[in-house]
Formats: sequence, C-alpha cells, structure tokens
Amino acid sequence: MPIILGIDPGSRLTGFGVIEAQGSRLRYIGSGCIRIDTSEDLAYRLKQIHDCVSELIETHQPNEFAIEQVFMGKNADSALKLGQARGSAIVAAAVNNLPVHEYAARAVKQAVVGKGSADKEQVQHMVQLLLKLPGKPQADAADALAIAITHAYNTQHLVAKSGASKQKSGRLRQYS
Amino acid sequence: MPIILGIDPGSRLTGFGVIEAQGSRLRYIGSGCIRIDTSEDLAYRLKQIHDCVSELIETHQPNEFAIEQVFMGKNADSALKLGQARGSAIVAAAVNNLPVHEYAARAVKQAVVGKGSADKEQVQHMVQLLLKLPGKPQADAADALAIAITHAYNTQHLVAKSGASKQKSGRLRQYS
Repeated sequence: MPIILGIDPGSRLTGFGVIEAQGSRLRYIGSGCIRIDTSEDLAYRLKQIHDCVSELIETHQPNEFAIEQVFMGKNADSALKLGQARGSAIVAAAVNNLPVHEYAARAVKQAVVGKGSADKEQVQHMVQLLLKLPGKPQADAADALAIAITHAYNTQHLVAKSGASKQKSGRLRQYS
Repeated sequence: MPIILGIDPGSRLTGFGVIEAQGSRLRYIGSGCIRIDTSEDLAYRLKQIHDCVSELIETHQPNEFAIEQVFMGKNADSALKLGQARGSAIVAAAVNNLPVHEYAARAVKQAVVGKGSADKEQVQHMVQLLLKLPGKPQADAADALAIAITHAYNTQHLVAKSGASKQKSGRLRQYS
C-alpha cells in the first residue's frame, strides 16, 4: 500500500499532499502548503522548502514522490525562481532515496477531472470527491493531492495511456 | 583567514573554486568542475550537484559561499534548468549554515578584470595571474574562482563601490 507525496512547487507557495493508494481506493493522509516568507533571503527560502519537504518525508515515510512538470511561458525570471524552488524540493526527495516522478499539469487534470484544460476549481472539487474530504482543499494543496492521485492511478494503469505515457526511464520519470 | 567557496552553477557543468583570503593576498586552494551526466535523470543530476557541493564544504570547510547571480535572457526553459541546478547548490550551502553571497557576472568581471564586459579568456588570464597558477584554469573553474576572488575583494572593501554595492541584507547578499 504505497504512500505517495505529491508536490506542487512554487517560489512563494509550495503545495503538498499525502495519500495512500490501497488498490484502486485512495486514502487521504494530509495536505497543506509551505508558505515561504518572501521577506527572507533566497538561501533561507530554499532551505525552508528543502527542510519542510524533508520533514514531510520523515513524518509520512512515503514510498513515491510526484511533482508537477512545468512548461514555462515567456518569463525567464519566473522560470529561474520556480526552478530554484523545484530543485530544492527534488533534492530533498533524492537525498532521501525516493523515486521521483514528474507529471505535466495537463496529465494531472486529465487524470483527475477527465479534461486536460480543467480549471483550478474543478480540480479542487474532484480531489474533494475522490478523497471523500469534508471540505474543499486549498488550491495549492488540491493541486499537490491531484499530482499524488495521478501517480496512484498511473501506477495502477487506471489512466488511459494517452493521458499518461511514460516518456523516460530512470529514477525520475516524466509523464505528459 | 576566511576560506571562500565560489560556485558557477550550470545544468551541465558547475564550476567551483576554493581560495583563502589572507588580508589582501589570495591563496589558491583548489578548483574544478562538476560534470553532470546528462544521460541520467533530473533527480539524480540535482543530487549530484548537491552532493558534490556538500563534499567540497566538508573537505575545505569554507567560511563563505559565493555564487553567480543570474539574469536570464529570453529562454525560460534554460532558466528553469539553471534555477534547479542553482537551487541544489544553494541548498547544500544553506543546510551547512554557510552565508550565501550572490554576485552578478558584470560585477565579477569588473572586480577581476576591471571591465564589466570582459570575455571568458580575460577572466581566465587574470585568475591565473591573481592566484599565481602555473597554467590557465578551465573556463568554468576560472569563473568560480573569479566569483570567490570578487567576494574576497568585496569583504575587504577593495572593490570600487560602484562595482560591488550591497543590495540586500540578510543571510544571502546580492551584489551587482
């Protein structure tokens, strides 16, 4: 019964979601977001992300780590900031010997909502339904839970192959 | 006599340089570059950068960490990759409680060559002269040594204020 840690990285907010996949059933363990104090300097902020992800790994002992694969628009400055946040989270997983899987946002929406162009509210709604949560999770936490759910589905080959084809082998796997 | 570790981050090659600043005299300790196996997956590659930087810190016990501050052009994809590599190196420094300083490429060239628009060969040449090296260091290693030299100069206020003004306080300091 693998425990999956899903991460939605961001330079200000990093969403996280932890689920357990029991066959085709999913069990919610926890979720939330790491809120980075933007008044602090870069090194401190990246260490915060790294330390929080390390703590989540220590607390929940996940077997798998899934993170959003990002395709950047035209803003190179945002891409650099997001890259630094993403690198800090991935390093925390890699240092803890967790297999790292990447899922494109489209593949996550396709898997959870059934539509690659679904909006944030639809993702929140479906995550609430799928995990039988009493309320709507916060947007970043919902995204992180959706990434973890996508990985659970993908591992069990419950997702249509077009929606989550394996692109690359190795310790980090990318799905688009 | 502070030991400074300079890092020139890159997604394929990460240059490093270690120097000791004895008053206004500089002593070369070591330099080289971390060559990332691009056939490996992202998590493994980021872990390589993190582990190599951690090893350099353990071996040389630096008191200061200086890294190139990057201003990205138009390529958001390269910015994301560089950000991930940079994040991995900075996390290794932050986890080891090293103060992290950032220097813009222009400020490094201004400090080492005396001209913000100097080319790579001039940087290699001046690094060789300043550190009395028997040969020209490899380009990425030379850049990392130049970053460390800039920090040594800046700490001793030997650099003209226009070339290295302090922009931000906190554990990470930026100079442009």
